[in-house]
Amino acid sequence: MTDAAPRRRGRPPRSEGAEGPGARERILQAARAEFSERGYDKTSMRGIAKAAGVDAALVHHYFGTKDDVFAAAIEMSFEPALVLPSIIGQGPDGIGERLARYFIGVWENPATRAPLLAVVRSALTNETAAKVLRTFVLRRLLERIAADLDVPNPTFRAELAASHMIGIAILRYVVKVEPMASVDTEEIVAMVAPTLQRYLTED
Amino acid sequence: MTDAAPRRRGRPPRSEGAEGPGARERILQAARAEFSERGYDKTSMRGIAKAAGVDAALVHHYFGTKDDVFAAAIEMSFEPALVLPSIIGQGPDGIGERLARYFIGVWENPATRAPLLAVVRSALTNETAAKVLRTFVLRRLLERIAADLDVPNPTFRAELAASHMIGIAILRYVVKVEPMASVDTEEIVAMVAPTLQRYLTED
Repeated sequence: MTDAAPRRRGRPPRSEGAEGPGARERILQAARAEFSERGYDKTSMRGIAKAAGVDAALVHHYFGTKDDVFAAAIEMSFEPALVLPSIIGQGPDGIGERLARYFIGVWENPATRAPLLAVVRSALTNETAAKVLRTFVLRRLLERIAADLDVPNPTFRAELAASHMIGIAILRYVVKVEPMASVDTEEIVAMVAPTLQRYLTED
Repeated sequence: MTDAAPRRRGRPPRSEGAEGPGARERILQAARAEFSERGYDKTSMRGIAKAAGVDAALVHHYFGTKDDVFAAAIEMSFEPALVLPSIIGQGPDGIGERLARYFIGVWENPATRAPLLAVVRSALTNETAAKVLRTFVLRRLLERIAADLDVPNPTFRAELAASHMIGIAILRYVVKVEPMASVDTEEIVAMVAPTLQRYLTED
């Protein structure tokens, strides 16, 4: 991503509201914390606004609905706009390893792990949250990856890759089964990279 | 499994209680239904007993604690004692394909899918259920698979295989993202089998 302005992580350029600079980012941070703590069901637009120190109308102004905030809060964790070009833009060589390392990195980071766990939990127990994950997040993320793949059924291939990383995250960070829970991330990357490489580049 | 007695699926040989033959299996069926419908938290030994038409003391007699019933109800879905010998016993050739087909088969069967979804949901939202999955089910199942593998870190390898199948189940049956939700199971098996084969047989 090339951008003349100073880069601020997770914050696409957008006009500021009356609440001053950073309001959108504050709302997203608050939303992420609220969804993590309370789950999808019990999180409200009002609660997010309160936690961000803004008026609820501003949350609606920036994001529209609770589903939109939920999707944006998840996307914020993955920062696809920032990260995907550097993963995919380098071409097919080593894409499996770069993608594996990126996913594991997102999960290893405590700031992004908690909200992602909340997403997975919410999606597994709440049909609306599952729909948001399916419609906004997975479709956007996976189709962005799939668009650059030169294989049959690229979206299915991207989903196979994603399914593996999601399953690893569940066994490692939620179920915490050993040795998966404790092995060095590089051991996981070393095993998984050839799998993702095959899914994403081989017929 | 060699057994002179007529084989009844999911029912290890054990002495019958006063409730007559089949009580243990009835309890397991009831437990599976209760855990599926209510989740781990809200399922009680008393509720299981009532649904099975037996006294609660008999549930305790056969299984001990709620965790033990939970573990047994999950194992019942996988029937590892019946199935694993035919998957692993045939040796390393084609083990990836046999294992992929077995897991997908368990998930495709509506009778076993519902309780498995309940398990995954419970484990993601309840630490006790996660511990049961980790301690009883995964350890038993994966170590049984790992015991016959001739690779470094066999349990880790078995977990990598399991993580992939769990992730696929989540995207296909819970999140229902397309095309994963609708592709023919054989397409999944064809893509995943070489991955499992590599994890379980290659250095």
